[in-house]
Amino acid sequence: MTTVNPPAIPPNGTEQETRALLTELLRNFYGRNWVSGTGGGICGPADGGGLLLAPTGVHKERVGVDDFFVVDPADGSVMRRPPNAALRPSECNAIFCLAARERGARSVVHSHALSSVLAGDLARDADHVAIRDLEMLKGIRGVGNRDVHLLPVIRNTPRESELVEQIQRVLGDPRFASAFAIVVADHGAYIWGDDVLEAKRHAEVYHFLFEATVARHDRKEKETR
Amino acid sequence: MTTVNPPAIPPNGTEQETRALLTELLRNFYGRNWVSGTGGGICGPADGGGLLLAPTGVHKERVGVDDFFVVDPADGSVMRRPPNAALRPSECNAIFCLAARERGARSVVHSHALSSVLAGDLARDADHVAIRDLEMLKGIRGVGNRDVHLLPVIRNTPRESELVEQIQRVLGDPRFASAFAIVVADHGAYIWGDDVLEAKRHAEVYHFLFEATVARHDRKEKETR
Amino acid sequence: MTTVNPPAIPPNGTEQETRALLTELLRNFYGRNWVSGTGGGICGPADGGGLLLAPTGVHKERVGVDDFFVVDPADGSVMRRPPNAALRPSECNAIFCLAARERGARSVVHSHALSSVLAGDLARDADHVAIRDLEMLKGIRGVGNRDVHLLPVIRNTPRESELVEQIQRVLGDPRFASAFAIVVADHGAYIWGDDVLEAKRHAEVYHFLFEATVARHDRKEKETR
Amino acid sequence: MTTVNPPAIPPNGTEQETRALLTELLRNFYGRNWVSGTGGGICGPADGGGLLLAPTGVHKERVGVDDFFVVDPADGSVMRRPPNAALRPSECNAIFCLAARERGARSVVHSHALSSVLAGDLARDADHVAIRDLEMLKGIRGVGNRDVHLLPVIRNTPRESELVEQIQRVLGDPRFASAFAIVVADHGAYIWGDDVLEAKRHAEVYHFLFEATVARHDRKEKETR
Repeated sequence: MTTVNPPAIPPNGTEQETRALLTELLRNFYGRNWVSGTGGGICGPADGGGLLLAPTGVHKERVGVDDFFVVDPADGSVMRRPPNAALRPSECNAIFCLAARERGARSVVHSHALSSVLAGDLARDADHVAIRDLEMLKGIRGVGNRDVHLLPVIRNTPRESELVEQIQRVLGDPRFASAFAIVVADHGAYIWGDDVLEAKRHAEVYHFLFEATVARHDRKEKETR
Repeated sequence: MTTVNPPAIPPNGTEQETRALLTELLRNFYGRNWVSGTGGGICGPADGGGLLLAPTGVHKERVGVDDFFVVDPADGSVMRRPPNAALRPSECNAIFCLAARERGARSVVHSHALSSVLAGDLARDADHVAIRDLEMLKGIRGVGNRDVHLLPVIRNTPRESELVEQIQRVLGDPRFASAFAIVVADHGAYIWGDDVLEAKRHAEVYHFLFEATVARHDRKEKETR
Repeated sequence: MTTVNPPAIPPNGTEQETRALLTELLRNFYGRNWVSGTGGGICGPADGGGLLLAPTGVHKERVGVDDFFVVDPADGSVMRRPPNAALRPSECNAIFCLAARERGARSVVHSHALSSVLAGDLARDADHVAIRDLEMLKGIRGVGNRDVHLLPVIRNTPRESELVEQIQRVLGDPRFASAFAIVVADHGAYIWGDDVLEAKRHAEVYHFLFEATVARHDRKEKETR
Repeated sequence: MTTVNPPAIPPNGTEQETRALLTELLRNFYGRNWVSGTGGGICGPADGGGLLLAPTGVHKERVGVDDFFVVDPADGSVMRRPPNAALRPSECNAIFCLAARERGARSVVHSHALSSVLAGDLARDADHVAIRDLEMLKGIRGVGNRDVHLLPVIRNTPRESELVEQIQRVLGDPRFASAFAIVVADHGAYIWGDDVLEAKRHAEVYHFLFEATVARHDRKEKETR
């Protein structure tokens, strides 16, 4: 509704610009109920090869540009800390670093969206959900709208860091080579990209695919019974 | 969408900061349809041990920082009045004070969200609704994602103050010892925390749990019939 | 999300304040999809006993404070015109004036919300929809949460002005004496109040009642079949 | 919620005003999930008879007033380029120009809304979807609320430009002479108007019609089984 000019299409900018973009996206995602109740998170590229990592346990729409940790994707160790000494790094740390090492992801979104949980429910006893017949598949790098796109669905664990072993396995599974996302049953999704704007695009696309696939499944249940 | 820096992660601030946070949350909750039609409400800690209480019968997104009452949680008596003499304290007063006394809650949210009503419908003739298999359960203090979390569902009464007796009973019921919320059938929910930000987190988490539990229930109805 | 102080709880203000409030509400309602596609409308009290009436055929979120007509509720004649000579008074004129004369309404909201259409569908061959077992009923002046609240549902006509005869009839029907709203099948709803803020409250309450009644109806269809 | 005065109802303004309006609408549509994940697009009239065309592959809510191409509707050739040399014209180019030539459209919206996909699903093996019994039909120029409005539904193709042949055919089909929109199955919709504000009105109206028709269809499936 406002008439102010939107921010310019950002290049791969400075670390300060990336910090501003990450906080903007956290507010955007909060408005969509992807990171409500302090859940979910995001990371992006820092100067010097590290990852900017949002803190854990804080309301994500309130994270400021100075509140990020910088971690080493090689092992998740903290390279730089935020001035606010009360903050601790996100529980997503190990998983974000794994995606960075295995897939070269420079930005990862962790969503707690209801649509991702309901999409995970579709897997039932299978280890994946299949997405097809949607133009929006083209929003995923390398995927066409006639592909059947398989997304891994892994089991939830008591702590986020314990998901690592399962994630390592599905990242090596050739059935999921074209996936930029992993669904965690009962929990949410990890979605990544080469940079923050690709992770944003993939996050928006996958949530659309979740919603469409769930809506079509539920309708089909009714009509074919 | 805006690029302004968000407000810093608030500490347990001054009363003036708490008043500003409460009005911000009322606007936030209004945007989610949790407090529409002048319904719902919120309280938070005042200086001197009282509770800041929003007025009744006013559009909640229009409440200003000077519009709060300060009430004594011991008995709900008014300690300080807002300058606007036309305002009366919220009908939630007795219930908010009860949560403060019985659970040490320093902040309580009263929601009229549709999802809370539909979650209450799931109880039918039982006195509770069971929530399980959701990572977001970890957003409730002391609860794990493998717990089966029982929430009390009480009957609605003509006046809000008449709910007090039922609430007192369920707050003493050991089955509900881990609950930070009470659902009132046909009405909404009371959700609390140690401070305003915990009440906000719990409110966001419980609404997610309501929505997820309702969506899964409705889908299961279809599939198992 | 913003930290600016909200506008103060408005008294029954000057005409200029009423104009500002009406444009604010049109933007608010646009954001809820109640007045999209230039549909819907609103009126409120003008100085001198007239009604401020939004123009027809314009995008409602773009209406400015100077774009209102002032009409005489006795017969809908235009008392004052907006400076923009291209504007024409809303098609709601006759109906708004009728509500003003028959019920003393000083403010009427005309909604094109999907929930109002789906609620109208529930009437089928009956001439009303019954709303019950919802606390939010208390948001309607004079109604309690144990009342069964009957809302008239009238048939749609090719032109809005042709609804007048049906509306006159249901406004005189004692079954609907406590109603502050009329549902037009396939179309939307007219909702009124003594002043703009009561019309706003009633609009928010009735839309909640529409959504809740539709959701419960659809769920019951499934479970009792 | 804000009290600022909204932008005045725009006349058919200067090209600079049209650029500002197009970016405002892209942000508006992004907020509705019609152009998420860089999908969708819009065009409007440029000075000199060309069309202002948004760039491809960029986050649509971030498009600035200087980021538009100007293309010749006669053949889609680029008449003016944006200063940002990295931008390429939208894939919608050929289709937007076709609508301009065949229907005189000066503004076209391309939506990726879920409701447009679900509406397309209703066509099944037919080549259209029928919309009826909705007042909002009157929001489409020349259509009445008692008309049965037929919208063409075409098959999706791997590339957007390959849709052209099908679109040419349905634009010449007399059954669809009153349609200002084409649904692409599994994909979205193209919606147009004589100017930007009519395209906006038609876009809002058609999305409402999609949502209402899908909701009623799904409900009827349940009730008549």
